[in-house]
Formats: sequence, C-alpha cells, structure tokens
Amino acid sequence: MIKAGIIGSTGYAGAEIVRLLLQHPQAEIVWYGSRSYIDQKYADVYRNMFDLVDERCLGEDMDELAKKADVIFTATPQGLCASLVNEKILQDTKIVDLSADFRIKRVDVYEKWYKRTHEAAQFIPEAVYGLCEINRESISKARLVANPGCYTTTSILTLYPLVADGLIDPDTIIIDAKSGTSGAGRGTKLPNLYCEVNESIKPYGVASHRHTPEIEEQLSYAAGLDYQGGQSILISFTPHLVPMNRGILATCYAKLKDGVTADQISASYENRYKDEYFIRLLGAGNFPETRWVEGSNFVDIGWTVDERTGRLIACGALDNLVKGAAGQAVQNMNILFGLEENTGLKLVPVFP
Amino acid sequence: MIKAGIIGSTGYAGAEIVRLLLQHPQAEIVWYGSRSYIDQKYADVYRNMFDLVDERCLGEDMDELAKKADVIFTATPQGLCASLVNEKILQDTKIVDLSADFRIKRVDVYEKWYKRTHEAAQFIPEAVYGLCEINRESISKARLVANPGCYTTTSILTLYPLVADGLIDPDTIIIDAKSGTSGAGRGTKLPNLYCEVNESIKPYGVASHRHTPEIEEQLSYAAGLDYQGGQSILISFTPHLVPMNRGILATCYAKLKDGVTADQISASYENRYKDEYFIRLLGAGNFPETRWVEGSNFVDIGWTVDERTGRLIACGALDNLVKGAAGQAVQNMNILFGLEENTGLKLVPVFP
Amino acid sequence: MIKAGIIGSTGYAGAEIVRLLLQHPQAEIVWYGSRSYIDQKYADVYRNMFDLVDERCLGEDMDELAKKADVIFTATPQGLCASLVNEKILQDTKIVDLSADFRIKRVDVYEKWYKRTHEAAQFIPEAVYGLCEINRESISKARLVANPGCYTTTSILTLYPLVADGLIDPDTIIIDAKSGTSGAGRGTKLPNLYCEVNESIKPYGVASHRHTPEIEEQLSYAAGLDYQGGQSILISFTPHLVPMNRGILATCYAKLKDGVTADQISASYENRYKDEYFIRLLGAGNFPETRWVEGSNFVDIGWTVDERTGRLIACGALDNLVKGAAGQAVQNMNILFGLEENTGLKLVPVFP
Amino acid sequence: MIKAGIIGSTGYAGAEIVRLLLQHPQAEIVWYGSRSYIDQKYADVYRNMFDLVDERCLGEDMDELAKKADVIFTATPQGLCASLVNEKILQDTKIVDLSADFRIKRVDVYEKWYKRTHEAAQFIPEAVYGLCEINRESISKARLVANPGCYTTTSILTLYPLVADGLIDPDTIIIDAKSGTSGAGRGTKLPNLYCEVNESIKPYGVASHRHTPEIEEQLSYAAGLDYQGGQSILISFTPHLVPMNRGILATCYAKLKDGVTADQISASYENRYKDEYFIRLLGAGNFPETRWVEGSNFVDIGWTVDERTGRLIACGALDNLVKGAAGQAVQNMNILFGLEENTGLKLVPVFP
Repeated sequence: MIKAGIIGSTGYAGAEIVRLLLQHPQAEIVWYGSRSYIDQKYADVYRNMFDLVDERCLGEDMDELAKKADVIFTATPQGLCASLVNEKILQDTKIVDLSADFRIKRVDVYEKWYKRTHEAAQFIPEAVYGLCEINRESISKARLVANPGCYTTTSILTLYPLVADGLIDPDTIIIDAKSGTSGAGRGTKLPNLYCEVNESIKPYGVASHRHTPEIEEQLSYAAGLDYQGGQSILISFTPHLVPMNRGILATCYAKLKDGVTADQISASYENRYKDEYFIRLLGAGNFPETRWVEGSNFVDIGWTVDERTGRLIACGALDNLVKGAAGQAVQNMNILFGLEENTGLKLVPVFP
Repeated sequence: MIKAGIIGSTGYAGAEIVRLLLQHPQAEIVWYGSRSYIDQKYADVYRNMFDLVDERCLGEDMDELAKKADVIFTATPQGLCASLVNEKILQDTKIVDLSADFRIKRVDVYEKWYKRTHEAAQFIPEAVYGLCEINRESISKARLVANPGCYTTTSILTLYPLVADGLIDPDTIIIDAKSGTSGAGRGTKLPNLYCEVNESIKPYGVASHRHTPEIEEQLSYAAGLDYQGGQSILISFTPHLVPMNRGILATCYAKLKDGVTADQISASYENRYKDEYFIRLLGAGNFPETRWVEGSNFVDIGWTVDERTGRLIACGALDNLVKGAAGQAVQNMNILFGLEENTGLKLVPVFP
Repeated sequence: MIKAGIIGSTGYAGAEIVRLLLQHPQAEIVWYGSRSYIDQKYADVYRNMFDLVDERCLGEDMDELAKKADVIFTATPQGLCASLVNEKILQDTKIVDLSADFRIKRVDVYEKWYKRTHEAAQFIPEAVYGLCEINRESISKARLVANPGCYTTTSILTLYPLVADGLIDPDTIIIDAKSGTSGAGRGTKLPNLYCEVNESIKPYGVASHRHTPEIEEQLSYAAGLDYQGGQSILISFTPHLVPMNRGILATCYAKLKDGVTADQISASYENRYKDEYFIRLLGAGNFPETRWVEGSNFVDIGWTVDERTGRLIACGALDNLVKGAAGQAVQNMNILFGLEENTGLKLVPVFP
Repeated sequence: MIKAGIIGSTGYAGAEIVRLLLQHPQAEIVWYGSRSYIDQKYADVYRNMFDLVDERCLGEDMDELAKKADVIFTATPQGLCASLVNEKILQDTKIVDLSADFRIKRVDVYEKWYKRTHEAAQFIPEAVYGLCEINRESISKARLVANPGCYTTTSILTLYPLVADGLIDPDTIIIDAKSGTSGAGRGTKLPNLYCEVNESIKPYGVASHRHTPEIEEQLSYAAGLDYQGGQSILISFTPHLVPMNRGILATCYAKLKDGVTADQISASYENRYKDEYFIRLLGAGNFPETRWVEGSNFVDIGWTVDERTGRLIACGALDNLVKGAAGQAVQNMNILFGLEENTGLKLVPVFP
C-alpha cells in the first residue's frame, strides 16, 4: 500500500483527494493535514466522511510527514509548498504539488503573474509538469510533480494536438472558459456566498488570470517554441464563474491554417488521444457538457470547423475537482509508483 | 458474474442501476431495456456513458430476458411489472421491482391509492418488501423483491426503531419530506422544467401521496398491528419538491409516550442499527443534510427530544436515486445472491 | 415626500428596502447607513444600484439621523436598535425595527431565547408588533414598530384565523418551514457559501429557533390567552435551508377540533382576509409555491382538511425579503404616514 | 390608455410583457392570446398573476384583435406573425413582433438560417429593426417593429460603437455568449428539464445559431457596409446554456485596429451611450454580471484592452426576458406612441 499524506486536506481539492484515495485499492491516507482544523476530527469538517474517516487533522510538519509517507499531496495556497520543500524531503518522499509553485519554468514569469518571490526556485528545473497524457514519461521518473491547474488541463488538452500538428494559428487562440464554484475554494469570502453566485454568470480575471501563462507555456512547447529562451505563444483567456458546484468548460477559438480540413482536425485528435483512457473524443460536430463528466476523471472533447469564418471551435469539459485537481493528482501518483494509470480512477460519471 | 437485465434503463433510476452495476465487481449488464429508445445506443441517451457502454437499447421482452438474466430490475411505471411477470419467469430468474406493484400487501389499498386494477395479485403474497435493513432474512429467500420507494425508505428507517420499541405515539406521526427533482423522473412535463422548479419550493400530493400507505403498512408491522386484518397506523405525509437534483430529507414528528427519555431514543436507534453499514447515526442533537450522502447508499439519521412540547423530531436523509432506488435494488441483489451486502456499494459520498 | 433613513442598508433586507423605496412615489432615502462600508459608494456595494444611487454609506449616528428623517428603518443585528433608541429620537422620528428587539412583550422570554440582556426594555410596552394585517390600527398610532420576522409572518398569517376562530387545537401545531438562503444574511460564513448550500437541504435550529416564541406569542393572542400573564401556546417549529435565493414556505399541521369541517376552515380564512390586498387565498386543495410570490409583497395561502387523520394542513408562502422583511417594513411606513397600504408595493411577482 | 393585445401571452416572453404592462401607467391589456390555453384562466397558467389578472386566454384571431388593440405584441414561434399579418391589420394597429420574421432584410439569408419560406416578405422593407438605442427615429414612424433577439441585443449594443467608429477589426469578432434557461422557452422538451440543465454548462448551436446573421447584419450597418448588396461582416457566435433562470452575458473579442488606445474605446462608448437611460457603462476594467440587471431593462457594458494580445474584450449583460425581449418590446411601444421611453420600465434590478 502506498502511504499518502495530504497537506491542505480540508480544502475542496484536498477533500476530493481523500474521497478518491478512500476508494483506491493500493493507497492509504496516513496524514490529514489542515492548518485551520488541527486536532479536529476530519469527519466533523466534512460530514460526508462520517463513519468513514476516524482521523483528526494534523499540522503541516512536512519533515515529519516525509518520513511517514511515500507521497505527499500539497493542496495548499500558492507559495506554501515552495516554502516547505527541501532536498531532504525529496530524498524521503515524492511530492505532488497542486499549487502553481512549480508549474512554470521561468521564474520571472511566475513572479510577475503571482506577484510573489519564489522561495525554492532551485527545484523548478527538476519539477515535472504533471499533465499525464502529455508528460507521463517524465512524470514516472520525477520526485516533484507540479499538478496542473483546472482551467489549464482543460485548455491544453483541448488544443495540444492541433498546435503540435500545426493545424491552427497559435496567435489567434482565444479560450473562453467557464467554471463551477468549487474552483473558487472553500474560503469564506463575499463573492463565494450562495446568493452572490446563484442566478448569475460573470467574467473575472479578464486578461489577467494566472492560468494564462501556464497555458501559453505548454502550448508553446507543443508549437516547438523555445519558451525558456523567450519565445511564447500569446493567448486570450477569460474565465467565468457559473452557478454550479463542479465542472469546467473551455470554449476555444483559433483560425485554421490555410487549407486545413475538418478531417485533419479529427485525425490529429485521434492520433494523439485514441488510446487515452481519460480522454473521450466526441467527434466532429458534437460538444461536451459538464454534466457528463461530473465525479469522474474524464475529459470530453468536441469540435467543429466553421467554414464561414475559417475558424476551429473546440470545447473541452472536465470535473475541476477530479481531472482538474485531485483525480489528476492521483493519476500522477499512479504513474510515480508504476501502477496502471486508471487504478482507483475508473469512476463512472454521476448523473444527474 | 451475476447477469443482470434492466427494464426501464433509461429513466433516472434505471440509469443509476447502470452506473452502480458498471462499478460492481460481480455483476454485468446483459440487457439495457428501454421502450422509448429501442435500437438506439445507450450512450447516446446518457452521454456520461460514452466509451463505457457500447450496447443498444432493447425492448421489454421479459420472457426472453428471463432466460438470459439471473436477475431483472424493473425500473418502470406502476403496473408494468405486474403486467409482465408470470410463474415461468419467476422460475427462470429473480426480479427486483422498483415500481410499487408488489410493495403493498392489501390489494384493496393498492388499488385505491394507485387507481388501477392489480394485474398479478397472485404474486403479492410471496413478494418480499425489500427494505434490506428490516427484511434481509426474507429477501435472501425471495424470487420477487418489491424495492421500496424513496420517501418510504427514508421515513420508515427513521421511525422504525422508535415505533417498534413503543417510544412514540404512532397516531401522532407527521412526516414532512423534501425531495430533489430527479425523484420526479425524466418525463417531459411542464412542472419538471428547469425554470418551473428552480428558485422555488412547493408541496404536492398533500394528504394524498401514494407513498403514504406504504409507510403506514411498514410502521404498522413495527407496531405489531395486524395490518392485513385491517389494523393500521395513520400518518400525515407531505412531500415537497426542492430545487436540487438528488436527495431526500424526511423531517418526522411524533409525541413521545409518557416518561420516554432522550436516552431511550438514542438506545433504540443504537440497538437496531449499530451494525448497519449503510445507516449512519449522527447522534442526538445532530441532523442530516442531503449533501453529505449524495452519490452514496448511506442513510443519515439524527434526532432530538423537544422537552417543551414533548415531541420527538427525527430526520433521515438519503440519495433518492441510490438508497432510495438503485442502490437499494443492488443491495437487494447482493442479498439475493449471497454476496456481502455492500459489495459494489461502498461509495464515498460526493461533495460538493 | 417621506424622508427615510436606513441603518443597515447593506444587508440583504436593507438593500431590499432601498429597492422598494426607490420605486415608492412618496418616499425618498436620506441616509444609507452601513457600519461596514462607511464612505464607500452604495452602488459599489450593490452594483444593481449603479446609476441609480449616487450616495455613499454613512455610519449609525441615530441622533443625527433622527433630525433628518421622518422614519428610520433599522435592518441590523439583534440588540443594535435597542442600544441606540432613546426618548429624544422617538420624539423626532418614527422607527421601524427589523430586528427582534421589540417583537416580544416578555423580556424574560426575549432574554432566554436571544441570550442577551435587553438594553431598552422600557420601550417594549409601547412598541407595536408590525404584522400589518392583524395590527394596523395600533401601528397607525405607534412611534416604534417591531417588524416581524420572515418565518413568523408566514406562520402567523397562515394560522391566525383558525386559532382565533377556535377551529384547530393549538397544542398540536407543528410548523415545518423552508427558507431561501438570503434569509441567512450576507455574512461571510462557511455555511453560507455557494457550494455548501447548493444541492442540499438541511434542518437547523431544531426545537430551538428564535422565531418560535414570536409565533407562540402572537398565536396566543389569537387564542385569547393571557400571554403576558404566563399563558402560552407551545408549538414545534423547524426551519430548513433551501438552495434558492428567496422565498419562505411554511407547512403547518394541526388537529381539527371535533366536528370542524373544511367549509368552516375556508370561511374562517375568507372572513378574516377577503379584503386584504396582500393576502391571496388560493382556496381549499390548492397550495402555494414560493415562485409565485417572488419579488412581491404577497402572501399566498392554501389548505386542505385530511379526513383520514383529522388534521388540517395549511401552507403559506411569501418572499422573505419583501413581505418577510422590507416589504412589510414599507407597508408599516405607509400605515404610519396615513398612505394607502399598498403604495409603492403593488409589485407583480417576477417569474421565472 | 394604450390598448395592447398579446399573441403568445403564455410563453415566458409573453408572460413578461404581461408583468410589465400590468405595471405600466399608460397601457392596458385587452387580449391574452394563447393557442395552447384557449378559454383557460390566465392566472391558472401563471399563478403569480392570481388576483391580478381575471381574464381568460383567447385565440389568435389577429383581424379581430387588430380592431380592439392599438398595438399587438406577437410573442410566438418563427413564422406565425408572417402568416397572419396583412395590410388591413397594419392599417388598424401597430405590431411589435418578438419573433425573427421581420428582423432580417435579406429574405435569402432568413430562409437559409431559418429553413422556412417567408410568407410575408412584402412587409420586410417597411419593418423597422427595433433596437431602440440605435433606431429610435425610424421606430417612431413604423407600423411593424421587429423586436431584436436576446443574444443579439446584448451583442450588438456591446460592439456597435466600436465598429461604427472603426476601432476594431470586424473580421476578428468572436462572441461567446451565455444565457439563462428561460431563453429556451416553456416547451416541454427533454433538454429543458431541471435535472438536465442544473449543474451543467453546455455550448449549443455552435457555428450555426440563428442569431448569427442578425448580429452580422446590424454590425455591417455600423461598419457602413452595403449589407443588402451582399457585403457583410462574418462573426463567430457561440451560445451556451447556463443553469439560471434569467440573464445573458456576451463576452466579445476583437483585434484592435493599429494604434487604437483604451481611451478611444472608452470615448466611443461614452459618445454613443452617455445619455441612454437603459445602458450603463461600467467603465474600463469593470465587467458586468447578470445578477445586477435581473428584472430590469438595463444593459450593463464593461471592457478592457489587453495590451499583450492587442485585443479588446468587452462584455454586455442584460435580462433576456426584459431588455432581451419584453422590456424592449414595451420600450418600442413607448416610442411608437410618443411616450417617454422609460415609461413603466424604470425597474430597479432585483437582487439577490
């Protein structure tokens, strides 16, 4: 059994890791970390865990935890993982970090978008961007995995094959994304209140959301650009808040390169993804809906070519807490420990 | 592997049986029955099943199905199971009927509340009321199991120990129940439209809902009454429609018998349910919320004694599609085939 | 023009007073009080008021305000109005208090349920309970009006005629109430978050909610009891939180007195309410739904007699922010100043 | 008093016209038309109208109606108005048609997108596109007003000034729009069911939605193109269904023309809209949310210039049933009859 510790186990993403690991046949949780609820029973914080989890919440002593755990999930605010990690810990255990600390290879880009000094930049080079379908080879050898963001997983997986195959013009990419409210976390802030979110939709972080550079970096790799040398695709990314608990939908637009056909688009997706368990290609003319992936680790992708405008419109949908956070983190754990990637993750989407 | 056929697999309850059996280690689905979608791909009707179910929908030829299946689930409107069942079928296979056809032992009561003639009354005596925690012994020997309704499972399990132990006055029982909208089914009726349900709560079937006699019958047994001889508890039962997909909450009121203490209430629950995997006793002063059981087969029960009024207030909560329908049906299947009752049903509630 | 000041104008009830007064032909707002947002533009706190309200928020200097305003609405937490009111203020202006400070005539009852010492008990005797349809005569002469709570308005109006006419047994009254989430206020607390409320229903304050004694007091008056002398009806009252913004539904149960008929029930309602603009009697066998009153000052009432159990089931529904708070407050203002009661309040319910 | 008849008064848009006219000081409803509910009480179809509307539903005899009414609103499916209108009717009364029949000047475009033959093409030339803020001069002299669609009102008003002033490249316009579910109408179709819409977001009509040519036509006029001569802007338009009752948000993207500054964008909006009562300019860097306009006739517009990508991102929000349908229809009526445009429409947005 893989011994897993979770730092930040009482946020929504952390709690979803708990849910997934409780149903995982080869892992057990040895540490329910939570700065806010130390010594309280975990099942009192999340009453769905009544009778299922007896443990109490512990602090964030990562040195201590590193000795007990084979893998540590850090589902914490930006900066925390960077402030705690050190060489000793990485020798003792593996880390899957759900924050953005190690996702971006260029420190200057990180520090500009996140408005903070990086406290452990020395580990950035070895960190592997944990987008399993793209980087599983490197992930399998990593000590430190930077688990991707929810918007970014949706956006990158939706566009990666087309950029890699040179079918769309990367300078015309616009991603209009919509997220359920659990993506905003469990913080007690006014904009997260029921009556503020319900019966409304709003854009936020327009032209300034932090997931933008993460998408740009990965798509730049797809395009073969020297990102670390300063080359980069620039995209427009606009997130919106939707009155629902879970789900992300990314509606992506780009100009097709001259002469590119709908069949080439379909072939590109098929070539890249046809053997991927967690990616479901709906086919041209079909579009995903977040309800069809809820509770599961699937990403559904659909697309069409608009002959009138010469644009591709492609949509990806996933459950932000599963494939967009905890599910991908467990998938990364499976890769790190040589298990079948879908171990414990063959969850049938829950509908309605 | 148990071979299972589902008649009515494209309703919400039927689809939930599909979801549960796909994750069940010892069962497989051999028949996706659906009168409305014959020959259509099941995954086109429920796109969450894309890539997971390749089969097409079949009709409701129960004779044919009986030869192929070890168990048949009938998740169909009232009357259908009664119109199809016969001795030959019951010799070939077992039936778990999710309709009300065989739930009520008195034909006159059934025909009065359901306003229809019973077409197979000869099978009523042998049918077993499939409330697992109460009747598992009889269920294990049955050929025909009448799976309880969603409101009734919640209500009966919440009050059964107290009635059986004579702690409350059965003539004072009032059950005010609230249900998510999936309980209304997938029929395309005006009252089921999004804009008609959203942002509203309403009572319906006041003093006339069909689940009333089912609750009365089972609680009469608990009270030791000769129900079939004409004795019966009479209760008030008021269902309400709540703008949410899943969940039932039953708020139950009754006068305590003279001198009954809160400790006796707690002891009654503990004695009856302490070893039940699917019943979670929250303890006196704690109350269930439907979000904590969503997606799982759990029933959460909490209660308090109101000294001012001499009343017990007890609440039960469950997921109407799982313990209130498909989950209990699979639990019944497990009992029928001698499996551990929670096989394939150790689902951790999904939150948020 | 009536000059109105609002203390607590940035809570949901306060903001609804703003909405109503902006559309009131004979009132204007001269003071947007808000402890939390002093000096901020009101329209920055409530962006629906963009271009409609230019004023900034002011503090809670009630002495100053009393000189400027003909009427002060205090839409504030319990205790604030009591801590600020004094004889001088009441000589200068009229007060409609939306908190519970002056609703209960017995200080001991108030202090027990609200767990606080009353700071201005000397004004309790003169305060008038502002349930307009019952007390309009006294309200018209009052200086200090105690605006009723949302649950209590619904519950009392639904049961008042039947208790007053002696048709039901007051000792058997059970009120199972359901409220939209705006009733919980705009405080940034975990239980108010979108993901905590959405897709769930829960009871709260079981056998202990503070609106209980308020309902008991008013229904005791209806029953002709000497409440201040110690006599009182005792009821069971259970509120539930519903995932919707607005609306309260109270489902009320009581044993009919011997021989009482459905016609007597209907006649009782008609006699009391037939000329009330804001009370809509749906007739026997019809039940209210909160969607049909949203945004308006109406109370819809429906009922049935359950012959089987000898019980009355009656339901009332209203918009908790309008008739349950701000609308009734404005209705009280209209009475205080001799206007037609429905001035500025002839709002057509908004659906969907 | 203006006498108004409504054909299609029992759809959501028709019912909203009823709500608005009941509160309009200078109009009265003389005809509640509804093919589906002939002879039924209107208040039985919409119970919010209980006690407010006594009339019964009538058929769609437009000749008869034309004699009684000063204005007819046709809130009906495509094709109905075109099939009923004739010269005699237009001599007797004015028509505000909420369907698409007379919105598009080119019959070939209409017939291609709507897949039907136009039955009254002879009236297309005289019909005026009823986007009040743009065409009020022509509207005031019209007999037949084609009330714009909900998506189109939002989209066109958001982009019109910038296209007219030549600040953005029209060939790069992408409109990603999100709508509440009332926009789908009250038809009893599976995709409109509560459980199908709730907890999900989906795109639909991708690259094929009928509002596309309507937006293109009006923006082509803004750009000074000879639309009827065959010139046209081509845009990408993608609508999405959001789990909420009301509201439309249009997120619009376009490349800025060389050298265009943020100040020029702001000035363009101000010049065009600063005196418009119903358009609220939130200013650069601020974005609308549908909750702030709910129940009102306002359009909120916000924008930013993304220096990184050289794109403008502008968002418009409105209530699809008010400014997107019934409110604009009443605004058109006000113009047709020489009233102040905001008569009966100074509705304060309802929040929460």
